[in-house]
Amino acid sequence: MQDEGVDAVIVANTDPHNNEYVADPWMYRAWLSGFHGSNGTLVVTQDQAGLWTDSRYFLMAEAVLEGSGIELFRMGEEDVPELNDWLGEQLAVGQTVAFSGSETSLAAARKRIEVFEKRELIVRTDLNLVERIWSDRPALPAGKVDVADVQYVGLGFREKLAQVREEMAKKKLDAYLLGRTDETGWLFNLRGSDLENSTVVLAFTLVTPEEVQLLVDVEKFSPEQVEHLNAGGCRIRGYQEIEAALAELPEGTRLLIDKRYLNYALSRCLVQCEVVEDRSIVTDLKAIKNVVETKNLRECLVDDGVALARFFCWLEYELEQGTRITEWSASVKLRTLRATIPGFRHVSFPSIMGYQANGALPHYTVTEDNDVEIKPEGILLLDSGGTYRNGTTDITRVVPLGAVTEQQQIDYTSVLKGLIRLSLATFPKNATCAQLDGICRSALWEHQRDFLHGTGHGIGYGLEVHEGPQGFGGRSSERMKPGMTTTIEPGVYRTGEYGIRIENIVLCVEDEESFFGTFNRFETLTVFPINTDLVKVDLLSEEELTWLNAYNGWSYEKLADKMSDEERSWLECACRSIP
Amino acid sequence: MQDEGVDAVIVANTDPHNNEYVADPWMYRAWLSGFHGSNGTLVVTQDQAGLWTDSRYFLMAEAVLEGSGIELFRMGEEDVPELNDWLGEQLAVGQTVAFSGSETSLAAARKRIEVFEKRELIVRTDLNLVERIWSDRPALPAGKVDVADVQYVGLGFREKLAQVREEMAKKKLDAYLLGRTDETGWLFNLRGSDLENSTVVLAFTLVTPEEVQLLVDVEKFSPEQVEHLNAGGCRIRGYQEIEAALAELPEGTRLLIDKRYLNYALSRCLVQCEVVEDRSIVTDLKAIKNVVETKNLRECLVDDGVALARFFCWLEYELEQGTRITEWSASVKLRTLRATIPGFRHVSFPSIMGYQANGALPHYTVTEDNDVEIKPEGILLLDSGGTYRNGTTDITRVVPLGAVTEQQQIDYTSVLKGLIRLSLATFPKNATCAQLDGICRSALWEHQRDFLHGTGHGIGYGLEVHEGPQGFGGRSSERMKPGMTTTIEPGVYRTGEYGIRIENIVLCVEDEESFFGTFNRFETLTVFPINTDLVKVDLLSEEELTWLNAYNGWSYEKLADKMSDEERSWLECACRSIP
Repeated sequence: MQDEGVDAVIVANTDPHNNEYVADPWMYRAWLSGFHGSNGTLVVTQDQAGLWTDSRYFLMAEAVLEGSGIELFRMGEEDVPELNDWLGEQLAVGQTVAFSGSETSLAAARKRIEVFEKRELIVRTDLNLVERIWSDRPALPAGKVDVADVQYVGLGFREKLAQVREEMAKKKLDAYLLGRTDETGWLFNLRGSDLENSTVVLAFTLVTPEEVQLLVDVEKFSPEQVEHLNAGGCRIRGYQEIEAALAELPEGTRLLIDKRYLNYALSRCLVQCEVVEDRSIVTDLKAIKNVVETKNLRECLVDDGVALARFFCWLEYELEQGTRITEWSASVKLRTLRATIPGFRHVSFPSIMGYQANGALPHYTVTEDNDVEIKPEGILLLDSGGTYRNGTTDITRVVPLGAVTEQQQIDYTSVLKGLIRLSLATFPKNATCAQLDGICRSALWEHQRDFLHGTGHGIGYGLEVHEGPQGFGGRSSERMKPGMTTTIEPGVYRTGEYGIRIENIVLCVEDEESFFGTFNRFETLTVFPINTDLVKVDLLSEEELTWLNAYNGWSYEKLADKMSDEERSWLECACRSIP
Repeated sequence: MQDEGVDAVIVANTDPHNNEYVADPWMYRAWLSGFHGSNGTLVVTQDQAGLWTDSRYFLMAEAVLEGSGIELFRMGEEDVPELNDWLGEQLAVGQTVAFSGSETSLAAARKRIEVFEKRELIVRTDLNLVERIWSDRPALPAGKVDVADVQYVGLGFREKLAQVREEMAKKKLDAYLLGRTDETGWLFNLRGSDLENSTVVLAFTLVTPEEVQLLVDVEKFSPEQVEHLNAGGCRIRGYQEIEAALAELPEGTRLLIDKRYLNYALSRCLVQCEVVEDRSIVTDLKAIKNVVETKNLRECLVDDGVALARFFCWLEYELEQGTRITEWSASVKLRTLRATIPGFRHVSFPSIMGYQANGALPHYTVTEDNDVEIKPEGILLLDSGGTYRNGTTDITRVVPLGAVTEQQQIDYTSVLKGLIRLSLATFPKNATCAQLDGICRSALWEHQRDFLHGTGHGIGYGLEVHEGPQGFGGRSSERMKPGMTTTIEPGVYRTGEYGIRIENIVLCVEDEESFFGTFNRFETLTVFPINTDLVKVDLLSEEELTWLNAYNGWSYEKLADKMSDEERSWLECACRSIP
């Protein structure tokens, strides 16, 4: 910092694509601070250091930062300043703040620069000081790539490219840069293995009406794959050649970029372009699943349900036998069961195996170090999923492992009512996700209960488990469209006690046409019984009870013949109707 | 246009405050085109002219514009271009487009200028060509002003000013300009009489920590009122002196403006200021009604309910007698009944007396010219309200005047269910208006019904009938806060047949505190029975039926002793419980 005349540095774990899952070489903040939470930003000045993270990670950060001299800023708590504002206060006019522009999205960088420039600070985005001192920084991952077959994804890349170009023509674009890696993954049907729990391939794509360039490490591909791509008109260039590719765009090119994904450094290479900032075209195309994808996903969810049924059957048996089971050993078992399914690639995310109080932490992750024994008492919350050749799953179920209290029943039943209410909803085509969110939450609100996370997220197909543009939340004006797959996952969390969450994946489908227009509804895709031991039946309406029994009965029909006799009797009990 | 070298002019009915109700001298578009709808913008070029308006006014505009050479652009219809885009297409690079900057909000002007400058057009905002040729343009209104007593508004202007300055200090502001007239009306408790259906006084207010300047025509005030204002530290200056007042602000003044209300011409006078663009402070202060206001409003709504009961009682009797009643004569009668209430100032808006098909037009206004006879058959929708010393009312009821069909009953009952569902809702303090909107609409959606307007709007206290920031709609992220008064008014419209809408005013109040935080709910303030002849009882849940009977019973208790014997027996019937 002294060599470069820098007074403050901002360090994060972000990559050049603003990906959700980031590969090791970009774990700058984790390497420097020792804090490995998924959300956190570090600030270092000559005499201070601070780490900003959210409530999920307060305990973890406290432990890691103790004695480090790094102050913890608990985001969301009262009187805790926003990072940019705090830093603005610390520095004097004319001092210099640095962050790495090539690993910061244009949107985030702009916000920072605005705050700092108002305070007349000098902002440097061309320095990555951590990279300089990180002598054993890992190399970029070099995992092999698989190209998904049309039988799994419905459309080959040439057809998808035609769709993209059609949209480009409507917007009168000369070029379109795909900044986020799952966009490139969707367009070329690429499935990578760079990361343990992700299908991401590090790549950019640049589309023009005449050409499509894929900027990626070609070593990840087999000669046949390269040939296939070349035959479709795709020009493969090195991952690092993106700046050169952008520089080659002719003067006056109308270029679409998405400021959420394009990094700031690249955005500075576009001086000769007429830059159109808008939502990435692939965001909308990818969100609407085609009939091949939804057909596959239905089958995928049956297989995933079988694995989960085997898991719960095993858990119940082992606990009865007095075997010592822990959150970690249970997670390993579940992964093993999923891994036997043909087409399995990886778990969608590290399982949230939340026993008792751990279930009250919505983003809890068990590791070997913080492991806890699961006993035949209390409540277990399990949020998990697998990513397969034929789809991505994400499911949450809660089961009691002993006697239940009335409070637990009311908590559980209000969450269940929320899930059912939204699963049963009919809504016009202009309905927003915020309106639908309100329908789900109203069931919890009636019982003075609520939860602080979103009610559901868009879910990718064999790519990222979280994807936009839709998602149920009080501030989302996004419209719910037929073909979108989304989770519904209301919850109730009692800090220090237990957590309740029930999660299904639903597909938006067309319902009836009426005088008032086209109406849509949801088809529930997730196949797995919802526990009924925690249900307080008199809180359910007749319609809700009918839905629950029908859903569990349908789950039995779908799963039963894939299971052993012993497993089937467990399933029969789990799926039984309640009066 | 030729004299000034102007190739296109945009003409609207907007005033320097972006007020909802505009005084005659600003009816430029109406004067030039003959079209008097509340929404419409005219564009004139050397060889073309076009009027943009929305679906409420298509029929009216077609009639007025026939043979005028002005083309009608039906906003919202497919392939109808947006005005700015259309005009951008018509003009060539270097041509000049003009609109009056002093009668266009900064927000609207910016949008226009951005579109036009991208097309390299010259934009002039300093010309008002219509004003030049409008030789008999009316003078600015000079209605007398009333200053509302503290017993009606709860807080004197000194207390309100202290609140404003407290917020200014939090935002480190040196000055704050109140651009919209209802803001000034709220701050000084002014009630004007410039317009027939509005309490607006044309004025700006400029607040600094040391001084408050009211820029208004002082002739509207009595000497005592002037003395009262001066004694409170208020400096009164001429309405036209606003530019001078802004010019006097010292170099570097941190000035808050709201781009929705400040006009573009004034925004250009602020070169020496550090302009802070944000929501006007008064918007939030005004929205939270104080206990004096809510207490008064409850009483006001009883008086308003009595007037409405007398009206319906009269209507029923006269129709039975065979008297010829029309939408217009009924409106006049209703106004007369409201006008007898002490404290009456004006109707909140021209009554929507929508008989049969006219009820299907959500913003229908009857005039003497388009009058229709009300017969003892079909359905009447009546949306009306009064503005009084002790509050502003807005209520919609629907009554059958003859036999009803099953479709009408289902329509009506689904609307009623929506009203009840939201009236009964409990919600946490961070609930958004979009979520609440979804709760209301879900009742209609279940029956494949919907409506295209908002579910409700914030309602002012003795000022504008429509006020923000809150309002139920699918895209509103605004939070519903205790003290806010809002309408709930779902509807169903059958074009060419009839319209259904039921509207109450509700007050957001605190409900229980739970482990999950503070919850709020609504208290229904409107006192008037909801018609039960149109209810299809088997569509109501037990809870909904209980609510309906309790509400009508409560209305009877509140209204009965203010009515004559004959009226009371009408009321008794209207309020009777249904099984």
